[in-house]
Amino acid sequence: VLLPRATTFIRAQRLVDRLGIEVTLASETFQHTGSFKYRAAHRVACARPQRHLIAASSGNFGQALAAACAATKKQCTIVMPSTSSQVKVEATRSYGAEVQLIDVDRVSRVERLAELSALFPSAFVVSATDDPDVIEGNATLGAEIAELSQSCDVVVAPVGGGALAAGIIVGLRREDFPARVVGAEPSIANDAARSLRAGRRVTNDREPRTLADGARSLCLGARSWEILEESGTEVVEVSELAIALAVRLLFSHANLKAEPTGALAIAALLAAPEQFRERSCCCVVTGGNVDSALYCSLISSSGDL
Amino acid sequence: VLLPRATTFIRAQRLVDRLGIEVTLASETFQHTGSFKYRAAHRVACARPQRHLIAASSGNFGQALAAACAATKKQCTIVMPSTSSQVKVEATRSYGAEVQLIDVDRVSRVERLAELSALFPSAFVVSATDDPDVIEGNATLGAEIAELSQSCDVVVAPVGGGALAAGIIVGLRREDFPARVVGAEPSIANDAARSLRAGRRVTNDREPRTLADGARSLCLGARSWEILEESGTEVVEVSELAIALAVRLLFSHANLKAEPTGALAIAALLAAPEQFRERSCCCVVTGGNVDSALYCSLISSSGDL
Repeated sequence: VLLPRATTFIRAQRLVDRLGIEVTLASETFQHTGSFKYRAAHRVACARPQRHLIAASSGNFGQALAAACAATKKQCTIVMPSTSSQVKVEATRSYGAEVQLIDVDRVSRVERLAELSALFPSAFVVSATDDPDVIEGNATLGAEIAELSQSCDVVVAPVGGGALAAGIIVGLRREDFPARVVGAEPSIANDAARSLRAGRRVTNDREPRTLADGARSLCLGARSWEILEESGTEVVEVSELAIALAVRLLFSHANLKAEPTGALAIAALLAAPEQFRERSCCCVVTGGNVDSALYCSLISSSGDL
Repeated sequence: VLLPRATTFIRAQRLVDRLGIEVTLASETFQHTGSFKYRAAHRVACARPQRHLIAASSGNFGQALAAACAATKKQCTIVMPSTSSQVKVEATRSYGAEVQLIDVDRVSRVERLAELSALFPSAFVVSATDDPDVIEGNATLGAEIAELSQSCDVVVAPVGGGALAAGIIVGLRREDFPARVVGAEPSIANDAARSLRAGRRVTNDREPRTLADGARSLCLGARSWEILEESGTEVVEVSELAIALAVRLLFSHANLKAEPTGALAIAALLAAPEQFRERSCCCVVTGGNVDSALYCSLISSSGDL
């Protein structure tokens, strides 16, 4: 059984100079299957007794669960939006999973999962955003950040369903590490920011078409929401332009290939630099799986904030 | 004084599956200044008493020496071919070095260095390929590979002036590590392969215009040549197409941004797979500094071998 890989910490001086912020990257782009999702998928696949796991995923959790099921010799079915990037669909299939593509404007992931659950009563449906094992799997990244030798006042992490930020909070607490966690979320998919302002979970009407395809979920998971709310976590909203610029800066100033969702934390530093100056930041780069056509359009763009 | 960063070992399952060869990457793309050259530059800048260092470099050694001189508060002059990539010229200047661009078809680097040496008699001219401190600096990478927990029968490393392969040989020997070192060199810049066949150092007539700009040197350094020859090192020659494909595979199957020179070792596995099957290979990815325009043309190409 393939164990999760330790994160790759990178301090890129040219990126630090460009941002004017002390930043260390915690890159999960070299994690098995190319994103942090393998941490949770591995934990779920090992912990659950069922021989068939089903999940909905905009891509990276699907790949990760497919690989974790292959490693534990389990059957795997993944529901993906038909707008998912082709590399993610192909990679998921390459690990032996069955992929079901759905038009998310016509049927929600939740509805399709309910149908599959009825069809395969002995299977287990994994919530990529809210399974306790998912949050625990992500907590391992918090524990690794707590062991970082450099100082770290703030950990900045992308927010989709919230299980990554929640897991990091859990992992840091367990190690008594005092860093704050700040979420980074696309402005056009800002259910987490709106939820924290409203004091209750708010849901997007439909899956937003942000570049950050890992943050297209409709709302925070219930457990993740509880953890984010009681810890008073802040969320920085970022524009699509900031996401594109962040992908480009990671390419040009850190030699790091990141997917748009993976660049959200750096986009937050671009969007609200005053919140991060005079602080030591650890930015989680969650994944690197992106089509070459989209990637080239992002790194070749010339827009600035 | 900024110490060199330990190399980043990456085992990318999709790349292993695609190549059909057990390969671990030793990536120097996150080394300070984005290439392995900082190891040697740091050592030279610390070891030499002179307050002004001069070197010729197609780019990465220049950046590295500039950064090492900045860290040790020394003056730095770098001679670069006028065909060097713009990012490398700008990065070198950003570290405070003076950059002198030359048309290599009209004046060789050696000639220009001789002129500068006469002009600045108290300065020290560093040979990027042959200074004993350069080979020693590169030997630290051999020592890190020797500590790798996985098995490793063969280390594949790009060959330009030969100081990297020579340094790795020195480092592995010092640790009594039995792996063989195999060089990877562009076919259109094959002075090392020709030298090893002829039993004497052969020189290219002019700097070859290979994609792998770090391998455009005219000939092996004298010390590096001695080490490569007495150790019976083999060199695999690779086509420009194989270099492009290797850059693309590192992008798509390992999430790793590599410059063309950095992809030479993977190109060698593509060019001569039969030499590497049934072996555990460690491929050194020497650097990641590449213009976005060139990079996009490489990862968007559809050629195969």
